Amino acid sequence: MAQLGTQSIQFEEAPYILSSASIVGTKEGEGPLGKKFDVVGKDDQFGEQTWEEAESTLQKEAATLAMGKAGLVKGDIRYIFGGDLLGQSIATTFGLMELNIPLFGLYGACSTAGESLSLAAMTVAAGYGDQVLAVTSSHFASAEKQFRFPLEYANQRPLSACWTVTGGGAFVVGHKRPGASEAGNKDSEACPAAGKKSGARITGITTGRVMDYGVKDSMNMGAAMAPAACDTIYRNFLDFGRGPQDYDKIVTGDLGYVGQEILIKLLKEKGFDITSEHMDCGIEIYDRQAQDTHAGGSGCGCSAVTLSAHILPQVEKGAYRRILFVPTGALLSTVSFNEGQTVPGIAHGVVIEHG
Amino acid sequence: MAQLGTQSIQFEEAPYILSSASIVGTKEGEGPLGKKFDVVGKDDQFGEQTWEEAESTLQKEAATLAMGKAGLVKGDIRYIFGGDLLGQSIATTFGLMELNIPLFGLYGACSTAGESLSLAAMTVAAGYGDQVLAVTSSHFASAEKQFRFPLEYANQRPLSACWTVTGGGAFVVGHKRPGASEAGNKDSEACPAAGKKSGARITGITTGRVMDYGVKDSMNMGAAMAPAACDTIYRNFLDFGRGPQDYDKIVTGDLGYVGQEILIKLLKEKGFDITSEHMDCGIEIYDRQAQDTHAGGSGCGCSAVTLSAHILPQVEKGAYRRILFVPTGALLSTVSFNEGQTVPGIAHGVVIEHG
Repeated sequence: MAQLGTQSIQFEEAPYILSSASIVGTKEGEGPLGKKFDVVGKDDQFGEQTWEEAESTLQKEAATLAMGKAGLVKGDIRYIFGGDLLGQSIATTFGLMELNIPLFGLYGACSTAGESLSLAAMTVAAGYGDQVLAVTSSHFASAEKQFRFPLEYANQRPLSACWTVTGGGAFVVGHKRPGASEAGNKDSEACPAAGKKSGARITGITTGRVMDYGVKDSMNMGAAMAPAACDTIYRNFLDFGRGPQDYDKIVTGDLGYVGQEILIKLLKEKGFDITSEHMDCGIEIYDRQAQDTHAGGSGCGCSAVTLSAHILPQVEKGAYRRILFVPTGALLSTVSFNEGQTVPGIAHGVVIEHG
Repeated sequence: MAQLGTQSIQFEEAPYILSSASIVGTKEGEGPLGKKFDVVGKDDQFGEQTWEEAESTLQKEAATLAMGKAGLVKGDIRYIFGGDLLGQSIATTFGLMELNIPLFGLYGACSTAGESLSLAAMTVAAGYGDQVLAVTSSHFASAEKQFRFPLEYANQRPLSACWTVTGGGAFVVGHKRPGASEAGNKDSEACPAAGKKSGARITGITTGRVMDYGVKDSMNMGAAMAPAACDTIYRNFLDFGRGPQDYDKIVTGDLGYVGQEILIKLLKEKGFDITSEHMDCGIEIYDRQAQDTHAGGSGCGCSAVTLSAHILPQVEKGAYRRILFVPTGALLSTVSFNEGQTVPGIAHGVVIEHG
């Protein structure tokens, strides 16, 4: 476990992403990735009475499905690293409560998928757990209510606004060691998936710093997050001694069209051109013409479900040999925003390789 | 790094708490621990314009002071694990931004001091960083605004209500290895404190699960958190093969008088009597008669500043040989509460030993 530079770790024994799952809402189901998701809801309430409960259901179902795909039961999972966008992370609390698994609650805004995968990989690589879960979610309706206006307001959205993805993503990160996990595994029999070659390993991480370029427009999250994405990608290049050519894809979370342009420009100023390698989950998930979400998709769930359904399969089959996954978060709150504060950003980088 | 049971870790090479710092508001300064805190504010705004900015200042000043006590500068700190109670953790974002250190944002309600110390210890023990910071805060006025009523309402508080502590606490967790840290430490000279015998080591952790006993009273956090404290302490006893007699103190975060009674009763039902060993930071921090805070103190800052100022010195000098520190969090949000949800709890246990 080499410490690289000031922000990165390279794992000596890289943990595997044993399985993952994605569950999304109707709009995401109608988008270009629609057929790739594990579950598309019939409506966006997922059988619940409130938007927040619906979002909790996204987490619970994604976690359960990911465990099932790996042939695991909840007793096989040592820790959950989970978070969401809502105040006091209630989607996570109420979504994951029933699983009865020790929980580290996280808040990294829309970068949470990267933060949770980072900590999950650190935990497994250090031998603290044989299998751990990384879970995140977002919901369009609960996020609009939290950050902007209730849907009933029918407010006009500027062209720089992103559309919060309704989706939950879960990842089981584990050792490659075959057979049952070694400790505390009273609830389950031998763990069939732990010995299977999963095809995707987390070989390193680059943990982000809070970056503030003074953006004060809460309807332009791409601009708020692009400097953080730039900083994390740049530090990753320096720490690992790599450049854009060393990655098949450099995948940001939810910069959208506005943020993508800024990121590419900022990195060019630092001497790196990622135009050919860059992909943004917020751009991938919706059809720009047909779905008109303006600047693209956003939210914790955006990068999580796109990684699970669209990107990981390419890594697993070796079409992508190595990617840099960089979920991006805008550290926005209505309280700080209404008090005149800026919207700082943070981005957490995860290196995922075929193997 | 042995995995113990389903929830605990015992560190083979236990990380040190190299230093800590506490900064509190006026009411805490007037309480029984007043003279022990590093800094007591002249007023509760700490020179800022808003309560949220004041809380950010608590984090920044506590972190800076803790680094200074250890003879470290920000370039010596590899990661911060930080969090607070506010929606989207804005006290942490704006408080720690200037430090420019990679940040893992956490949300564990008032259990965050335990969560951050757990992850800091895991990180250092695994060799991912030589020194890391664990930082948390709470502020009476920002918490009342967030969770209950703005102060201007002058609402009546029931006797079961706790008083949110205005305070920030920071802990530098590091290797005992003498001399400079080994990697990525361009900004600083040799690190004088790293070789010093600090006197307090984190020897193990027990990570909590979300526990829900159906409490729906947002003015009775003690009752909401007691079952989680009970579960974590009970699991700690089982996982480590210990009982109350193996700890000089079992220190909960902010159960207060109401929660303490419930915790002791619940643990008795499981066969353990912790009456003699139990201490609660929320009870310690205010004078029950003179300050009339009703059920006691609460908030992320409560357990953090009490550990730093009141408890760690006893561990460092060996008056306490081994303690179990169990910050307790009520996973309350106004959104979930107003939608009729319960208030679940979570508690994270940290074993701290003299050495």
